[in-house]
Amino acid sequence: MASAIFSDCSSSTTARVFTINKIRTGILHLRQSSAIISCKPRNPSFGVLSTQRRSSYSTAVAMSLNTETSAKVIDGKAVAKQIKDEIKIEVLKMKDAIGVVPGLAVILVGDRKDSATYVRNKKKACEAVGITSYEICLPEDSTEEDVLKHIADYNENPKVHGILIQLPLPRHMDEARILNAVSIDKDVDGFHPLNIGLLAKRDREPFFVSCTPKGCIELLHRYGITIKGKRAVIIGRSNIVGLPVSLLLQREDATITIVHSRTENPEEIVRQADIIVSAAGKANMVRGSWIKPGAVIIDVGINPIDDPESPRGYRLVGDVCYDEACKVASAITPVPGGVGPMTIAMLLSNTLDSAKRALKFE
Amino acid sequence: MASAIFSDCSSSTTARVFTINKIRTGILHLRQSSAIISCKPRNPSFGVLSTQRRSSYSTAVAMSLNTETSAKVIDGKAVAKQIKDEIKIEVLKMKDAIGVVPGLAVILVGDRKDSATYVRNKKKACEAVGITSYEICLPEDSTEEDVLKHIADYNENPKVHGILIQLPLPRHMDEARILNAVSIDKDVDGFHPLNIGLLAKRDREPFFVSCTPKGCIELLHRYGITIKGKRAVIIGRSNIVGLPVSLLLQREDATITIVHSRTENPEEIVRQADIIVSAAGKANMVRGSWIKPGAVIIDVGINPIDDPESPRGYRLVGDVCYDEACKVASAITPVPGGVGPMTIAMLLSNTLDSAKRALKFE
Repeated sequence: MASAIFSDCSSSTTARVFTINKIRTGILHLRQSSAIISCKPRNPSFGVLSTQRRSSYSTAVAMSLNTETSAKVIDGKAVAKQIKDEIKIEVLKMKDAIGVVPGLAVILVGDRKDSATYVRNKKKACEAVGITSYEICLPEDSTEEDVLKHIADYNENPKVHGILIQLPLPRHMDEARILNAVSIDKDVDGFHPLNIGLLAKRDREPFFVSCTPKGCIELLHRYGITIKGKRAVIIGRSNIVGLPVSLLLQREDATITIVHSRTENPEEIVRQADIIVSAAGKANMVRGSWIKPGAVIIDVGINPIDDPESPRGYRLVGDVCYDEACKVASAITPVPGGVGPMTIAMLLSNTLDSAKRALKFE
Repeated sequence: MASAIFSDCSSSTTARVFTINKIRTGILHLRQSSAIISCKPRNPSFGVLSTQRRSSYSTAVAMSLNTETSAKVIDGKAVAKQIKDEIKIEVLKMKDAIGVVPGLAVILVGDRKDSATYVRNKKKACEAVGITSYEICLPEDSTEEDVLKHIADYNENPKVHGILIQLPLPRHMDEARILNAVSIDKDVDGFHPLNIGLLAKRDREPFFVSCTPKGCIELLHRYGITIKGKRAVIIGRSNIVGLPVSLLLQREDATITIVHSRTENPEEIVRQADIIVSAAGKANMVRGSWIKPGAVIIDVGINPIDDPESPRGYRLVGDVCYDEACKVASAITPVPGGVGPMTIAMLLSNTLDSAKRALKFE
């Protein structure tokens, strides 16, 4: 992927901006440039506000207008769209040249509604870029052997270039055993410990990098944010985000610190960061006072909080207190619309890369 | 291994103290307690010194006497001896119970003198604890296939529980390919990327942890040094030391930062550390001013520097300026006699563990 600054402010951006407006509980129209979207309002008098809302809104606007440090919004939704457009073109090229398209297989066990939604979204995303999707849905009471049998079939199937086990698996299953059964060269999720080990060793290359961590770094690249030599603080040390993000940032010559639940004075450490990647899963944990002026923030947290005004009764916020962070940081990902959309784009990208490797197609 | 404070001040300690004295270019007798050895001289008037030496020596002693912060010396040589004694007992138990002893195979390619010395030392260490050692010495111009054939033989051989490829290999060989051929359950060096990946994932367990990193942590354990919640700064990010040490410290709930050649203001970051592990390979790089009072220092560096007064014309020093560090740190490993002797002890420990696992012997 190129490291160019992203410059597509397509219609999909509108939805995101609307969401941000809701989160900020004010109706702000965000200034757009060709490269970035700023928190700074273009027209602060726009919109009809209740008295109470107008009051807090005015304060926010005043602060926003009084400072030159309003953060760029790192628009993950738009970047993801651009990446998917790029993938679509490459899949077409492959089809034209060798008559084959990449294939992604998903195995879903049980009937969790959220998992079913994720799988449906992945299927749609595949279709949109021309990747063939395969799907197996197994009942909740399936045995590990059932799942392993299907994994073995997909491992052998030359039309399948990526295999994804939708997590969580039912409790009676040994997750590690099942994930380990996925062939290392089809592990598009990048969760296999061998892929993690290859990522950790600087002179080696993993077959795949996990999708969300790869998406975080891709956002930094596409916004032209320097990583080399910078202090990066990763909040959270999960196997699926914190750990691989820290390894990726280190590969790019950042000086990394990993903050976690046992860290004393986390705010003091976070305040030293040029780049903050938060994957703690705690709503609004990172306050404005934790942030060094000019820092770049990648917020991986997606936390539901009560919101009686929302039709669903809740809304989603990140780990970082967005309103406060906007006034201190130089760039920030919103939630939703930041890292989230990148995950599926990176899954498609990993599947394409896998097909290219398997088919020796450049 | 237990995390008890080490309390064996056996005869082997004497040799180490002598070595430390040489490094400090003064003849100091170090105060010994049952648990620790302090830099503070017991009898500063002991020894015969040249005028020039006496002068610098007096300054050092004066500073040492004037401060209450003289560092404990973390005596790797003595700890390693104790561990080898423990291993010897366990090997005997195994032999008595099932008539089998652990076996360690070493493959040496080429005729590098230093490599031959290392292999000889490993063989001696095996013999001393009752582990059977196997050895293959291949000529410099061997092919990769020759080496791979011997690895395959050892992989199959049930008497061999650990396989070690002495590095560096001749330049015409693909090191990664050869190391990868070692069976994951005999990789006592712990360099296989799968072992690194398993170490990185907090809910998984590696088959083996690399010997030097494991030795660093073992020293902290045996000296009762708290890791949980502490700020740990690792200097150097090599695959064989910096990386696995950082993963180990993180597993023990330290908050880790990794400093490397691209880090800006390393001294500022190191100064925040409660625990410093230096594996940079730069003589005396870490000065006293880099160290927070009371920090614990594990110095993995072994750097030769010119010394016309030594019969060899050089002496070995660590990455940390020992004289300065002693006055600030609360505990420190000397070079030599700190981490160095632990590496071979951990190799024997890994071989024993491997045999126990293979033979299902508790």
